[in-house]
Amino acid sequence: MGEFLHDHPITPRTKDEKEKVINRLKRIEGQVRGIQKMVEEDRYCPDILVQISAINAALKKVGFTVAERHAKHCVSHAVKSGDGDEVIDELLEVMKQFSK
Amino acid sequence: MGEFLHDHPITPRTKDEKEKVINRLKRIEGQVRGIQKMVEEDRYCPDILVQISAINAALKKVGFTVAERHAKHCVSHAVKSGDGDEVIDELLEVMKQFSK
Amino acid sequence: MGEFLHDHPITPRTKDEKEKVINRLKRIEGQVRGIQKMVEEDRYCPDILVQISAINAALKKVGFTVAERHAKHCVSHAVKSGDGDEVIDELLEVMKQFSK
Amino acid sequence: MGEFLHDHPITPRTKDEKEKVINRLKRIEGQVRGIQKMVEEDRYCPDILVQISAINAALKKVGFTVAERHAKHCVSHAVKSGDGDEVIDELLEVMKQFSK
Repeated sequence: MGEFLHDHPITPRTKDEKEKVINRLKRIEGQVRGIQKMVEEDRYCPDILVQISAINAALKKVGFTVAERHAKHCVSHAVKSGDGDEVIDELLEVMKQFSK
Repeated sequence: MGEFLHDHPITPRTKDEKEKVINRLKRIEGQVRGIQKMVEEDRYCPDILVQISAINAALKKVGFTVAERHAKHCVSHAVKSGDGDEVIDELLEVMKQFSK
Repeated sequence: MGEFLHDHPITPRTKDEKEKVINRLKRIEGQVRGIQKMVEEDRYCPDILVQISAINAALKKVGFTVAERHAKHCVSHAVKSGDGDEVIDELLEVMKQFSK
Repeated sequence: MGEFLHDHPITPRTKDEKEKVINRLKRIEGQVRGIQKMVEEDRYCPDILVQISAINAALKKVGFTVAERHAKHCVSHAVKSGDGDEVIDELLEVMKQFSK
């Protein structure tokens, strides 16, 4: 915390929203455990690399869902309150990390 | 399996090699659980996005470790046996996924 | 054109804004020509790959400058007019390409 | 130069190989000029961002072609001469830039 403008979203996430994101993260957690098993079983490296790429893609998808919600709630709210530029700078800074 | 040229590495991973990779994956698994908690606590989106980027970076690092081992053992072995090109094509194909 | 919601930015780019972006693109154009020369001179592959990565990084930087301007002008304007969500969806769709 | 193990490929690029890569780079150069024109004409930001993503993708493709050639010639040669690991480290280091 502290680094960014807020600690919580302007509109709290609904129970349903939380569940959807958490379920996707649980699937990703399972995929990470799956790779541990592959290493344990001494599976072929390219098979492992394909799985790692799949997890990265899944994480990026979750990230974009989070970013979309943020843009439609927090950024939109800030724009209407006249503080849009700061929140936009903050979001773009974070998106730069994603593009790496 | 099946998609690639082999099911296992040409040189089996040592117990120590396996442990190192698995430990890093366990840490990543913990990070994924950490994000679930952040969503549960309704934390600010940019904070969550930063964590997702961190996991992606950690996964890429593991991927490069796996790729390095693959190149130094399997690719090198295949080159010496005269089958290098096929294994190189296979590795580059997988690396393309990573560069996304 | 046609694919997106508009053909032009809501606030026209100033002469100065255009010049800055175009100058950066001209430098990138020069870097691309530089790689052609490196290939012509049969330079070592890793040297060429480093240059290609540098251009990709420079292009992403230009992209983020363009995205920032877009968010601060077009997206903000759309949010204030009540059409924010569509423009946000459009921008995130485009950012997904960048994250590849 | 200097940073890497060699200044030139172990097997010189043929005239035909050079031409193919250079032609693709010329197309990319043209695309970069195309974006300059789009900025000049004050085109809509998402249209510009799509073009930048296309150039990045095209550059990565060229990069993978260069990397493939490198792996099949220089890396393979080094492996056969017993110096594989160094050249593999060098290539992976460069590929890490690509994955950003």
